[in-house]
Amino acid sequence: MNPNFRIKLVAMVLSMTVSLMSHAGEHPRLVMTQAGVEKIRSQLSTVPLFDATVKKVMAEVDAEIELGIDTPIPKDYSGGYTHERHKRNFLIIQKAGALYQILDDDKYANYVRDMLFQYEAMYTGLPLHPKTRSYARGKLFWQCLNDANWLVYVSQAYDAIYNYLSADERAALEDNLFRPFADHISIDSPQFFNRVHNHSTWGNAAVGMIGLVMGDDELVNRALYGIPFDELDATAKDDDGGYIFDKDGKAGFLANLEDPFSPDGYYTEGPYYQRYAMYPFLVFAQGLNNAKPELRIFEHRDGVLLKAVDALLNLSDADGDFFPLNDGQKGMSYHAGSIVSAVNIAYHMGGEDTRLLSIAAEQGRVLLDDAGMSVALAVRDGHARAFEKTSVNYLDGSDGKQGGVAVLRPGDSALELVFKYSSHGLSHGHYDKLSFSLFEDGDEILQDYGMARFVNIEQKGGGNYLKENTSWAKQTVAHNTLVQNETSHFGGKYEVGSLHHSDLYFFDDARPGVQVVSATESNAYPGTEMMRTMAIIKKSNFENPFVLDILNVLSDTEYQYDLPFHFMGHVMQANFEYESPASLEPLGNANGYQHLFVEGRGHPATDNAKLSWMEYDRFYTLTSTTQESDELLFTRLGANDPEFNLRRDPAFIIRRKGIGNTVFISAIESHGGYSPVSEIAINSSSLISSIEILRNDDRYTIVSIADVQGSSLLFFLARKDASSTSRHEVRIAGRPYMWTGPYNIVGLD
Amino acid sequence: MNPNFRIKLVAMVLSMTVSLMSHAGEHPRLVMTQAGVEKIRSQLSTVPLFDATVKKVMAEVDAEIELGIDTPIPKDYSGGYTHERHKRNFLIIQKAGALYQILDDDKYANYVRDMLFQYEAMYTGLPLHPKTRSYARGKLFWQCLNDANWLVYVSQAYDAIYNYLSADERAALEDNLFRPFADHISIDSPQFFNRVHNHSTWGNAAVGMIGLVMGDDELVNRALYGIPFDELDATAKDDDGGYIFDKDGKAGFLANLEDPFSPDGYYTEGPYYQRYAMYPFLVFAQGLNNAKPELRIFEHRDGVLLKAVDALLNLSDADGDFFPLNDGQKGMSYHAGSIVSAVNIAYHMGGEDTRLLSIAAEQGRVLLDDAGMSVALAVRDGHARAFEKTSVNYLDGSDGKQGGVAVLRPGDSALELVFKYSSHGLSHGHYDKLSFSLFEDGDEILQDYGMARFVNIEQKGGGNYLKENTSWAKQTVAHNTLVQNETSHFGGKYEVGSLHHSDLYFFDDARPGVQVVSATESNAYPGTEMMRTMAIIKKSNFENPFVLDILNVLSDTEYQYDLPFHFMGHVMQANFEYESPASLEPLGNANGYQHLFVEGRGHPATDNAKLSWMEYDRFYTLTSTTQESDELLFTRLGANDPEFNLRRDPAFIIRRKGIGNTVFISAIESHGGYSPVSEIAINSSSLISSIEILRNDDRYTIVSIADVQGSSLLFFLARKDASSTSRHEVRIAGRPYMWTGPYNIVGLD
Repeated sequence: MNPNFRIKLVAMVLSMTVSLMSHAGEHPRLVMTQAGVEKIRSQLSTVPLFDATVKKVMAEVDAEIELGIDTPIPKDYSGGYTHERHKRNFLIIQKAGALYQILDDDKYANYVRDMLFQYEAMYTGLPLHPKTRSYARGKLFWQCLNDANWLVYVSQAYDAIYNYLSADERAALEDNLFRPFADHISIDSPQFFNRVHNHSTWGNAAVGMIGLVMGDDELVNRALYGIPFDELDATAKDDDGGYIFDKDGKAGFLANLEDPFSPDGYYTEGPYYQRYAMYPFLVFAQGLNNAKPELRIFEHRDGVLLKAVDALLNLSDADGDFFPLNDGQKGMSYHAGSIVSAVNIAYHMGGEDTRLLSIAAEQGRVLLDDAGMSVALAVRDGHARAFEKTSVNYLDGSDGKQGGVAVLRPGDSALELVFKYSSHGLSHGHYDKLSFSLFEDGDEILQDYGMARFVNIEQKGGGNYLKENTSWAKQTVAHNTLVQNETSHFGGKYEVGSLHHSDLYFFDDARPGVQVVSATESNAYPGTEMMRTMAIIKKSNFENPFVLDILNVLSDTEYQYDLPFHFMGHVMQANFEYESPASLEPLGNANGYQHLFVEGRGHPATDNAKLSWMEYDRFYTLTSTTQESDELLFTRLGANDPEFNLRRDPAFIIRRKGIGNTVFISAIESHGGYSPVSEIAINSSSLISSIEILRNDDRYTIVSIADVQGSSLLFFLARKDASSTSRHEVRIAGRPYMWTGPYNIVGLD
Repeated sequence: MNPNFRIKLVAMVLSMTVSLMSHAGEHPRLVMTQAGVEKIRSQLSTVPLFDATVKKVMAEVDAEIELGIDTPIPKDYSGGYTHERHKRNFLIIQKAGALYQILDDDKYANYVRDMLFQYEAMYTGLPLHPKTRSYARGKLFWQCLNDANWLVYVSQAYDAIYNYLSADERAALEDNLFRPFADHISIDSPQFFNRVHNHSTWGNAAVGMIGLVMGDDELVNRALYGIPFDELDATAKDDDGGYIFDKDGKAGFLANLEDPFSPDGYYTEGPYYQRYAMYPFLVFAQGLNNAKPELRIFEHRDGVLLKAVDALLNLSDADGDFFPLNDGQKGMSYHAGSIVSAVNIAYHMGGEDTRLLSIAAEQGRVLLDDAGMSVALAVRDGHARAFEKTSVNYLDGSDGKQGGVAVLRPGDSALELVFKYSSHGLSHGHYDKLSFSLFEDGDEILQDYGMARFVNIEQKGGGNYLKENTSWAKQTVAHNTLVQNETSHFGGKYEVGSLHHSDLYFFDDARPGVQVVSATESNAYPGTEMMRTMAIIKKSNFENPFVLDILNVLSDTEYQYDLPFHFMGHVMQANFEYESPASLEPLGNANGYQHLFVEGRGHPATDNAKLSWMEYDRFYTLTSTTQESDELLFTRLGANDPEFNLRRDPAFIIRRKGIGNTVFISAIESHGGYSPVSEIAINSSSLISSIEILRNDDRYTIVSIADVQGSSLLFFLARKDASSTSRHEVRIAGRPYMWTGPYNIVGLD
């Protein structure tokens, strides 16, 4: 235990105590209830989704029962045997407990009991886990986080067989296993338990859930409000570089329901970690709602837990994969077990939103509890309706005033543009203010690299964050946003970045044919103001909507600017000359640049640079306004990466030197397609013939986009007034244009 | 026309003439017959596969009719407008003709007639196509090949509306369009028409099919036997570097049915070009069978055309994609239209092999003719059975004595190992004797690069072969086979390579748990004998079968050897130290080496080098015997590739210097898997603990493969006697081992 923290268990606890409703003898009570179990047993074999899940889970649990119980002495990091075995154990006995309740078959209760007693026999006297890397070491696992995972699941298993056990058996388990286990991850580990962080949410839920099962008010209150302490080291950090203690001294489950969630339900760490945190949030909330309905936990902050489920689902692409904002492993999707839970609990506890049923049907499995039965019955009875994802704009920060994340989704198109103008996102945040990524039909077209980590793959740094996560993935140049003087936003300093956020300028998805979001950033590079405006525009003679990207930069000082486009796919054509070096050298020395090899270096041939590529048998073209002195770079990731921890992905960078005020304007088209079977290429060429900057000053940026068919589109951006009612008038080539609001578009049809 | 060829149309034609059966007035007669049309009309709307195709084709043709007819003045290469428009025209009028016969709707006949007359008006006086790149220029297209494509399809359209036209209309079309068109691609272009090559097959079929429709014996005979000529330039080559004239002076459709096909139906150019050639082979054969049944074309060479369809389907992976041997575009599959034709015609004309019906059902469409109806009816009536792909060994060469291609497919596994020991494969052949590639579940694990070409994508060199096809894709180092002194097999010379082939040593797929193929090559590097033996072995304690690869090299002279493994995926781990250069330099200067950057350079730490990678969420490990002085290289494709024509794919190369006789022994395991959704890694480590060479001399190579569970497997290879009845006895560590046949395996269970 960190000696800085002297723990005082004082009267404060008692003052916060809320009385538990009397549920003496009523078990299960967490995710299952007596009434719920009766309903499940009466409906069994008439509910396809539930029955299929029971069948699958039975096969899985029966195979483990056959294999026998193993609770090895802890020794490995994640990916290693003891870690993976204990992880599998808690997943399996939670399921075995559910099967016992559903099927009333003692085989499952015995299995749970036997495993619990094996842990009971082992836990007393078990030292801290031998691996020392964690800021908060567990006993079964190398970090308290995983011990908390264990207890969240095991408390459900215990709840399921509570009445099957004798009073003596329960006393032995509670005295020798559960209470000391809960104490270790809370009282003994305040640096883990008392944070506002997903780690602590797991810790809180674990302690609270076992408290609910044991009927232990003190544990439940500890979970809800954290543990009191009178000293904290405000500069202490965890393994990931995140601050340990909230500056306001708030802690516990309810505190974790405050800060990380915006009023919209956006979780500040981003969807990957929200996915991870949603399970303890919702499963503990479900238990609280059953055991302590007077807390009205699902109504807390105007239903933020339910809004969070909605936000999370909306932050996924067409395949259901979460957008990899900040640290996020690509491929994680709403098919994950935690989202099955989230969707089931949100449906059951949150007013039966029938859109959730279509996600549940796609997931193809349900929870084996009251919530799962509720969902399966509704799906069976045909209540599912589509979860239609449209454009959304989620504000960040507990007050909803710390920037946000917008997703533009034009109707009738598979394009999705993700625009990030949020706060830093705690320790898993990346330095990528005003960055974007683009998806089509679930495929990445312009990517956010995601994280440099192979979660749970032991060969790759024990499955933990790799050093390239810091040296590359978090750096600004790893994202589709502006880099000044080859340095990252906020100097790549978490202490600075976490103080700031970008600001929404405006968001408008109400107009047919165009959706726009615009935001500003003034702190990433002190003294430099950035405004980025991104639109998806459906012009009638274009096959697909195209993206318009206007990045304004204002500064009194001259700098070098790099604007990277992390395109995915194979280069088809460029409209400029470039040199291909015979040997590849890194582009720079630090801030991510040391990982980029230069594959080509050129200059624009005209005032527009064009690059086309093909991916997933579709064609894409980027057209960008350029200046004669701009440098155009083709880069390839992989320099200074001796362990092959990074993918060898390409990027295209527009470099502009020695400039204060400037603007980068780009259009991104998705066009045509290719079939390697028919060998026919359709619309393989860009339709845009030129992008022209008609005006760019502190009041207006006005752009003309001409196409090869001879028509033009004008986009007007008012730089100083986002009011939707302000009236503007400008003259272009002698002709007056008038409009109301922060932008205008002319020539859509 | 090439002045070297003075064409004599002599009595020889007459002597070869076979009389046409009288079909005066009977139309259609090519792919449809009067009886067939009656059957189609009577069954229509009761045959789901046929009806669905009619519906889809109607929508397509109706849209084109709506759009109007355009027959632009020829000017572009493939990918350009005029090329693609004329290509679309011939595809569409063939379909319109079929719809006319099926639906008896004059709209379609009029469309065909109007388009034909637009061509008729244009063709007279049309000069050679303005693009000059082809060795045989067409008129509508830049090469005769595409003109021949046009006529193959258009002759079907003409056949379909033959009776709809007046005698005057027919005379105009035949005199002004069809006969001069047929003459241009034959008499005027002998260098195109008289070859043994897929180009000529198209030419032969085109001339023959229009001849059949017109009832013109001379054209049909020209197609079957070629055009007589008395001078030829045996050294003349085409655009791809292939010889133009067969050394025996054979020509015409029947000659093309001889040389390129082995008795097994293997087509010497490989599956990609076989796919292309199968359509003219089969559709002309179908027409011949209808019009000249006495030729018994489908019985020719013991049914080689039908065997060829079977071979082609067997040379596809689990997704139906053809193995990219020689020049082959990846992604081409049996879903291509030409294979719909091949499968339909082979079923209809070739004894109704019901395995073909499952492929047809997967294709989801049928020909709109007699064959298609035949297939659709049989599918409807439930006659389809699975086309099960098992291990196969196809011999190459018209005599079946020029090496071959084997595919090892262990039962109960998704692995497929393709081993190439064939002849050169004409002008599209690669210099990759004894190479292999490995697939799992349709994914490439160790790849054959395929070709450097983006077929029909105009931005990429007009859609034609890129220069990197020669400088990289054809070179030996681009394949998983041995390179001596950084030179390609046969010095990369087509003139030399096309004289030789590898030889089968033995093939055995009869034994449970192990399948083996072994072949030798003595000409690729004169004075050096190579023998490669590849096995897939199912050992009971392994999750999946693993590949064993024994490559013996015998030479009196010392050389440097490189053995590349073109693994696909992300490096997980290596068991040896290597240096990662700060800047990337090409590995060599020529023969493909100029395209490889060196990403890592090391030496083995033990006598086994191990490399693990992950791809498609599965783990793979290569374990290779090494010598202390071996160099181990990580390479990345992309050096000297200014146009980004090559993929940035990785390879691992074992380099052994200054050695005469040696052996490379490797095992390749597929193990475990990873889910980014559950984030669980299963069996991420190799099971093989060591590979030991117990004996390696001119009589025997004996290998021990030990696994981490402590069991061992012995593999015995008799180097000098492939007889299945020879008895062998050796002693290992004092223990005698006896067996019969060229190999033995001990310790499978």
